[in-house]
Amino acid sequence: MNEVKTKAILAKQASLEMALVSAEVKNAFLQSLATLLRENSEFILDENEIDIQNNQERLSPALIDRLRLNENRIEAMAKGCEDIIALNDPNGYVIEEFTRPNGLDIQKIRVPLGVIAMIYEARPNVTIDAAALCLKAGNAVILRGGKEAYHSNKYLVSLIKEALTRNAISPDSVQFIEDNDRTLALELMQDREHIDVLIPRGSAKLIQSVIENAKVPVLETGVGNCHIYVEQSADLRKALAIVINAKCSRPGVCNAAEKCLVDQSIAPQFLDLLIPALKEASVEIRACHKTKELYPDLILANPEDWETEYLDLIIGVKIVNGLQEAIEHIQKYGTKHSESIVTQDLSAAQRFQKEIDAAAVYVNASTRFTDGSEFGYGAEIGISTQKLHARGPMGLNELCTIKYLIHGDGQVR
Amino acid sequence: MNEVKTKAILAKQASLEMALVSAEVKNAFLQSLATLLRENSEFILDENEIDIQNNQERLSPALIDRLRLNENRIEAMAKGCEDIIALNDPNGYVIEEFTRPNGLDIQKIRVPLGVIAMIYEARPNVTIDAAALCLKAGNAVILRGGKEAYHSNKYLVSLIKEALTRNAISPDSVQFIEDNDRTLALELMQDREHIDVLIPRGSAKLIQSVIENAKVPVLETGVGNCHIYVEQSADLRKALAIVINAKCSRPGVCNAAEKCLVDQSIAPQFLDLLIPALKEASVEIRACHKTKELYPDLILANPEDWETEYLDLIIGVKIVNGLQEAIEHIQKYGTKHSESIVTQDLSAAQRFQKEIDAAAVYVNASTRFTDGSEFGYGAEIGISTQKLHARGPMGLNELCTIKYLIHGDGQVR
Repeated sequence: MNEVKTKAILAKQASLEMALVSAEVKNAFLQSLATLLRENSEFILDENEIDIQNNQERLSPALIDRLRLNENRIEAMAKGCEDIIALNDPNGYVIEEFTRPNGLDIQKIRVPLGVIAMIYEARPNVTIDAAALCLKAGNAVILRGGKEAYHSNKYLVSLIKEALTRNAISPDSVQFIEDNDRTLALELMQDREHIDVLIPRGSAKLIQSVIENAKVPVLETGVGNCHIYVEQSADLRKALAIVINAKCSRPGVCNAAEKCLVDQSIAPQFLDLLIPALKEASVEIRACHKTKELYPDLILANPEDWETEYLDLIIGVKIVNGLQEAIEHIQKYGTKHSESIVTQDLSAAQRFQKEIDAAAVYVNASTRFTDGSEFGYGAEIGISTQKLHARGPMGLNELCTIKYLIHGDGQVR
Repeated sequence: MNEVKTKAILAKQASLEMALVSAEVKNAFLQSLATLLRENSEFILDENEIDIQNNQERLSPALIDRLRLNENRIEAMAKGCEDIIALNDPNGYVIEEFTRPNGLDIQKIRVPLGVIAMIYEARPNVTIDAAALCLKAGNAVILRGGKEAYHSNKYLVSLIKEALTRNAISPDSVQFIEDNDRTLALELMQDREHIDVLIPRGSAKLIQSVIENAKVPVLETGVGNCHIYVEQSADLRKALAIVINAKCSRPGVCNAAEKCLVDQSIAPQFLDLLIPALKEASVEIRACHKTKELYPDLILANPEDWETEYLDLIIGVKIVNGLQEAIEHIQKYGTKHSESIVTQDLSAAQRFQKEIDAAAVYVNASTRFTDGSEFGYGAEIGISTQKLHARGPMGLNELCTIKYLIHGDGQVR
């Protein structure tokens, strides 16, 4: 039996026990894990250094940065575990309860999904964040990270197993796939018997590959080609602040804006504010034909630009002929993540919110708020851009399913 | 462009309009459809007769019965439309609303899924039931029924389109795939660009084929290998009534019981009640070794029996050595649909409900209650046996997704 099958079977078995572990014990495990991370930070950094050395020549500086851990990032992982302690255990929560005329008492409660397989890339902190959330929600978790982070991940998983064991939870509740073979990844994506849900976290390419190959149900996360539409009635100062914030405050994340659509009636005025501010912030501008007419020194956007999530200090700027064209453009190129309109016109705001099909649709605010903490939900495992099960930030509730418990006294139909 | 692609594009386009149609107009459409069904019942029966004639020799009497319409079944379809009028429109329903410390107002509301593709077999009433529910929830729907019901379905779809047109809703909101080619079915299952969700309704084989081939997210429905476990403390009279009801009241449906597990300490007593009653009801009994020792005239069950959904007057009877073995058996062979324990022991009931992983877990009641109407939710499109998105009866709410509407006043992060 290969590694994936063996470990998936262990995870399935462990998930039955994991579903019965109390909130107190799960919280004690999270505290142990936080402590172990802090106590062993030097060893974590040693293992991480091996990964860095092994990949220094193959990876770009940006990817090396994602791979690299340091004292601050380890502290952030430990703090992340402690933050999850503070979140309510969703397991057993009664969503609704009612009694039918025939006397049947029906409870709809939250229960764990079972076994969650996480497929991710070179960021070792995902190992801790994902395991902590999945386990707190009562699931077993299978981790399959990028081979670049192999030594870091393997050591971090040993700490998770140690923290589980210290709290008398089966260490099989977390499984780490060591072999990076593609056939094994395919098996992971197709083992419906032992795995309940797949969550890919990383690049658009990774997510696409999981969608193409999975037979296990997928929770799609995170590709965000987000737009800010500056409508003709917009307060231009607010619009400027929103576009600059949405583009520049953290360009590498999925809720950053990638495109700015500007109503043509206000384009000359607004672009006179926006273009210098973007340049000041070192943002590369890819301009539509009309924008380039006004600013001939800008780079002309390719057709592919409109569908690209840059995750970088680059923005596409397009002049549109009113709300209808803005909505059509977003419907064509958006990734159903986060979209925003800046406007003082109530009916334009309402129409935009009604017709745009996305997880989060904003009026007069930055798209950067699409985030579990910003919504007040606490830590999240990702932002769902699909329509089934979960949409937007996915926290502990979204790592659960429901179950009906029905009590009778001999009722028949 | 082939038929599926052309119609999927039309459905996607229509779904944008459909999402904006008011509850009043959707209800008027449903009333028109009910009226058209009644007014044209003779023509429906004529088309249905062609299907019956075309398939008389190929199909079993049971399948011909599923295919056949009559005045009562047409009236039931019309009545079904009227029942859906009475259900609240889920579109726009505010699930939660809160204001964040930074002043952002966040609403989580229900919105339509978009385009739902139904793949089903030879029951023409699914055409009306599925279209009525999907459209009331604000979705466009693509119908791909079995070729056996081609003439019936085509005529029924023409009535749906007529009812849409009479109420100024785009008739493109319903699409009927006429070509039964397998390559086209595959295209339907994989067109993620235009189709949001696939719902297969029918045999285990159909559902399996959809799961194997789909790239569009699937809502899995309906396979029910449901168990009644008669625990040692059970009230045997109640247990008898529950098993007989769950097996015999409608053996062809997914919430019917297919297996009875009996605690060995009460087996001689209980089986002396059960076996004659099952025989009286013409139920064929497939017995485990221990049961056959007590009743040598019974048929011995094959290993495959334990995983089979008979959908017929057949039941598997197995003697188990206590709660643990019952739970393990159900975890191994159950389809996560509906499971029931008959017991007077509170801790046995609690353990069964906690450890059994299924949509509906009963204490002292028949599994036949897993049904949208019986739960008080109204009409349903099927019973979900998966864990993502929906579990148990799926009604209008489950044919929706959610969307966050966020109102700000220039907030940046």
